[in-house]
Amino acid sequence: MSGTPREDKKTVTACVVVIGNEILSGRTKDANLPFLAERLNAVGVRLMEARVIPDVPQTIIDTVNEVRAKFDYVFTTGGIGPTHDDITSECVAAAFGLPLIRHPEAVRRLEARYPPGGLNEARLRMANTPEGATLIDNPVSAAPGFQIGNVFVMAGVPSIMQAMFEGVKHRLVGGLPMLSRAVTTDLPEGTMAKDLGAVQERWPEVEIGSYPYFRMGRPGTSIVLRATDRNRLAMATDEVKAMMVALGGQPVEADA
Amino acid sequence: MSGTPREDKKTVTACVVVIGNEILSGRTKDANLPFLAERLNAVGVRLMEARVIPDVPQTIIDTVNEVRAKFDYVFTTGGIGPTHDDITSECVAAAFGLPLIRHPEAVRRLEARYPPGGLNEARLRMANTPEGATLIDNPVSAAPGFQIGNVFVMAGVPSIMQAMFEGVKHRLVGGLPMLSRAVTTDLPEGTMAKDLGAVQERWPEVEIGSYPYFRMGRPGTSIVLRATDRNRLAMATDEVKAMMVALGGQPVEADA
Repeated sequence: MSGTPREDKKTVTACVVVIGNEILSGRTKDANLPFLAERLNAVGVRLMEARVIPDVPQTIIDTVNEVRAKFDYVFTTGGIGPTHDDITSECVAAAFGLPLIRHPEAVRRLEARYPPGGLNEARLRMANTPEGATLIDNPVSAAPGFQIGNVFVMAGVPSIMQAMFEGVKHRLVGGLPMLSRAVTTDLPEGTMAKDLGAVQERWPEVEIGSYPYFRMGRPGTSIVLRATDRNRLAMATDEVKAMMVALGGQPVEADA
Repeated sequence: MSGTPREDKKTVTACVVVIGNEILSGRTKDANLPFLAERLNAVGVRLMEARVIPDVPQTIIDTVNEVRAKFDYVFTTGGIGPTHDDITSECVAAAFGLPLIRHPEAVRRLEARYPPGGLNEARLRMANTPEGATLIDNPVSAAPGFQIGNVFVMAGVPSIMQAMFEGVKHRLVGGLPMLSRAVTTDLPEGTMAKDLGAVQERWPEVEIGSYPYFRMGRPGTSIVLRATDRNRLAMATDEVKAMMVALGGQPVEADA
């Protein structure tokens, strides 16, 4: 589990940077963002932004520098393998103005992984980190990620990224976790919009989202409420349900 | 179909801005990015970056202003419904420094859609656009999107967003479409990395990506090649296949 929540700082923020042409070409569907969104929230860290960027050095460097200044934590996925298009480590080193070194412990882990003769120069590139980085364990295929400052550099393959995240989440110091409730109803959102806006005004510390849907051709709406305070969340949720009933709808509490 | 490809400008670029807390909370999985990535490519527009941002006015304004200056086209999804959390239209107007007006043609479409008394003030907000915007048709639920400058503001609901995109793609002037080929093999990428890098160096105008996978516990690699020139793409692909055979692998051409 993560460390003690920082009661002094209610909102601890994060940005995910997905690095890879394959997501932007539409060939690969990113699976890392939904995973990180959920897991970060569980340790009291709010994902505030995500970016998908190509394997272009200057774009990676500029993006890392922009978001590491703006958010408490940054998580990158992708671009740490052995091939020519894996350039994340050198770009993150450049972003921090640090030399790229061959990390001795990372080399040891790769040596233990590959049979004699298998650890070629290309694979050794996977041991490169910015000087001063802390390794992130890779229990799936050995080649580690790393943390430098507030930036966590992880693999793009979802099974590896997930294992890496489980191994580093204790390093994160989160704020209060965001709790959420969801209520669906068979009313279209336009019917509720005015009254829902009034509920939002009465509960500024509860974030209320409205998501329309169509099921079998009939409109309906999911209202999602999020807050760090369980009691206020419950009271705002009760108001939303009462509003739905008053407008002739049937509120159904759903998985939030 | 889109207009005549701009032969004078080989790379026409785009950025997608996904607006919505529900994606960042992990509750909703974005389905719009993969769709837009593929469809933009088909009309010769390359998706160079995507951002997922929350329903926070200043973030929306700043992001729109940054990316509309940086890319040829910008596509936003989400935040154009009738509820309090739908703030995209007013933020885009603010980004352009334009007044937000009630677009008469949009009002007419909403009037035609709703039964007498159904078009309340909240729903009328869906007719708000920056002054001078061109509407984007919504054949699903009437409430239009809009184009202002190089920014296309579309719905977040995938079925509506997709219908909107089909209706505006003729407005886009693309460059040469990116063609792609994919070859998979049962070799791990680290075995091919050096030789693959050499192929990439010989074919700088072909973008070569390497994507490792594990199937039934065995490693394999997909090599994806992308280029606008069919002949060069074919020659580079042949070199990749020959390289795989030389390294003891079995190349299999896959859907690119």
